[in-house]
Amino acid sequence: MTTTAAEQASGIDSEFDRGTAVVRRAAPAAGPDPVVYDAELDGGWRIGGGINGGLLLALAGRALADHLGTAAGHADPISVSGYYLSASRPGPAEVRTTAVRTGRTLSTGTAALFQQREDGTPVERLRVLASYGDLSGAEQDVRTSATPPELPPVEQCIGTEHAPPAFLKSADLLNRLDLRLDPACVGWALGKPSGEGRIQGWLRLKDGRQPDPLMLLLAVDALPPTTFDLGLPGWTPTVELTVHVRARPVPGWLRVVHSTRNLAGGFLEEDAEVWDESGRLVAQSRQLAVVPRLG
Amino acid sequence: MTTTAAEQASGIDSEFDRGTAVVRRAAPAAGPDPVVYDAELDGGWRIGGGINGGLLLALAGRALADHLGTAAGHADPISVSGYYLSASRPGPAEVRTTAVRTGRTLSTGTAALFQQREDGTPVERLRVLASYGDLSGAEQDVRTSATPPELPPVEQCIGTEHAPPAFLKSADLLNRLDLRLDPACVGWALGKPSGEGRIQGWLRLKDGRQPDPLMLLLAVDALPPTTFDLGLPGWTPTVELTVHVRARPVPGWLRVVHSTRNLAGGFLEEDAEVWDESGRLVAQSRQLAVVPRLG
Repeated sequence: MTTTAAEQASGIDSEFDRGTAVVRRAAPAAGPDPVVYDAELDGGWRIGGGINGGLLLALAGRALADHLGTAAGHADPISVSGYYLSASRPGPAEVRTTAVRTGRTLSTGTAALFQQREDGTPVERLRVLASYGDLSGAEQDVRTSATPPELPPVEQCIGTEHAPPAFLKSADLLNRLDLRLDPACVGWALGKPSGEGRIQGWLRLKDGRQPDPLMLLLAVDALPPTTFDLGLPGWTPTVELTVHVRARPVPGWLRVVHSTRNLAGGFLEEDAEVWDESGRLVAQSRQLAVVPRLG
Repeated sequence: MTTTAAEQASGIDSEFDRGTAVVRRAAPAAGPDPVVYDAELDGGWRIGGGINGGLLLALAGRALADHLGTAAGHADPISVSGYYLSASRPGPAEVRTTAVRTGRTLSTGTAALFQQREDGTPVERLRVLASYGDLSGAEQDVRTSATPPELPPVEQCIGTEHAPPAFLKSADLLNRLDLRLDPACVGWALGKPSGEGRIQGWLRLKDGRQPDPLMLLLAVDALPPTTFDLGLPGWTPTVELTVHVRARPVPGWLRVVHSTRNLAGGFLEEDAEVWDESGRLVAQSRQLAVVPRLG
C-alpha cells in the first residue's frame, strides 16, 4: 500500500496519526495558556514496561504543533527536548502546552503530558521544551560531511518477524513498523552481539503512512536499543531525548542508525540519525538512557 | 597557580563562581515554586552580541543545583537542555526555578532567566529543562569506545593572544580562559580554514579555578564556533544546547573537541566532547545553531 502526501493530507486512517491524535479543549476564560489537549494512549505502541518514548514525544509534539502553528504559523518541530518522568500506561492522557516565546522564524513552547492515578491525582509522564518553525521555508543550502549508512537492500535485511518471541511479546509497537535491520547488527538476537554498540536498518510505517516531521520524532526511538548490540539485554529507560529535525522527509523508506560510544557511570548516550530516500539527513537525535541492570 | 578542590570549597575568589553566582530570595508565603534567584550578568563573559551561552547555562544550572539540591539532594547536573530566546546583556537578571519531579536517583526541574527592558517589562533570555542527580554516587562501570582527541602538548598549541584583534575585541570571555587550540584547527585565523568543521584544544580557567560539573556547562560552549573552520565568519546564535555531564572531572586541563557534520537548511549542529586529565569523557553536548549570514 502506498500513499501520497496528498492522500495523507486528505485523511488516510493511519495508526500513527490516531496514536498521536490530540483534541484541543475550549480555552478557559482566564487566558490562553496553558492550552489543554485530550489524548488516548494506545497499548499498541507499548514497548517493555510503557508506551514508546518516541511516540509520546510525537504526541506532545503534535499538541505543540497545533498551539505554536495557530499562534505563530510555526507548526514544524525544529528542536524538541523530552524529559521522561514516569512510565506511561495505555489509557486517557492530557497534554498542557504553553508558548514561551513566539518569534519571526522560531517559536518556543513547553508541553507536559499527564495521566491520572487510580485515585484521580495527576502524575506527569513527560515534560517537553521545544522550538518550532516552518520547514517549507527552509534555506536550500546543504554543506554536509555526513554520509548515509551503507545498508544491504531492504530484501536482504532482517524483518522483526525473525526476532526472539520473548522480545516481540514485550514490543507491541513492532507490529506497526516495517523495520528491516542490517544483518550485521542483529547478532544479539542469536546470542552473539557485535559489541560495537550500533544498530541500523530501514524503517517505514506498516500501514503506508509516509514520514513527516512529527513521524521523525518516533523514528529516532523505534529501533531496539544499542545495548542489545553491547550484550546487555533488558530495557534502557530514557532520561532525556532531544531531536533536531533538519529537513522535511520525502515519501519512502527511512534509513535509521543508532549508535552508542560511552556507556559509563550507569548511563549511556544513544545517537540516532535518520536519512530519507533522497539521501538527505532529515533528523539527528541524542538520548541519555539508564544502563539496564544485569540479572 | 594551582588550586585544590579543598581550596575551591573554602572559597577561592573565582571569576567563574562570581559570574554564575545566584542569591535565593526568601520564599513567598504562597508556596515553594517558583524559587526566585537574583544574579548579575558580567560583561566580562561577553562574546559577539551577548553573554556566552555556556556561562548563562551554568548560571541557570547553579540556581537549579541549589533548588534540587535542597529539595532532594540532587545538586549535580546530569542532563541540561537550554533554549535561547533573546540575547542577554550585562546587568541584573532573575532566575525562576521549579521542581517538576523529585525522585530517588534523579530530579527534574525548570529554570527561566529573565532580564528587564528599559521600561521595566521582563524579557526571557533562556529557558532550561534539566535532570539533576549525585555524581559522587555514580556507578564506576566504564565501557566506552570513545577515545580522547590526539592533541599536541599544551605548549605547542595556540593561545588566544594570537587570535585576530577583531575577533578578540568581541570575545571578552577569552580573557578569562586559558585556551590552547590545536594548530591543525586554526587555519581560519590565517584565512585558510580546513573545511573539516572541527576545532579542538586544551582548556582551563585562567584564574586556576578547577573544573567541576557546573563549569563543564561553560566548557562545552567556550571554543570558537566550528563554522570558522568551515570558512564562515560571523557568529552562530544557539537555538538549543543540551549537555550530558557523564562524570565529575578531576583537577587539571580539559581537552575539548567541537565538530559539525551537517550544515543545512540554515542550521548546523555542533557536538562537543570534554575529557578530563585522567582521560575520562566527562561531558557530551550537542547544540543546534543558526548558520551565520554572509556579508
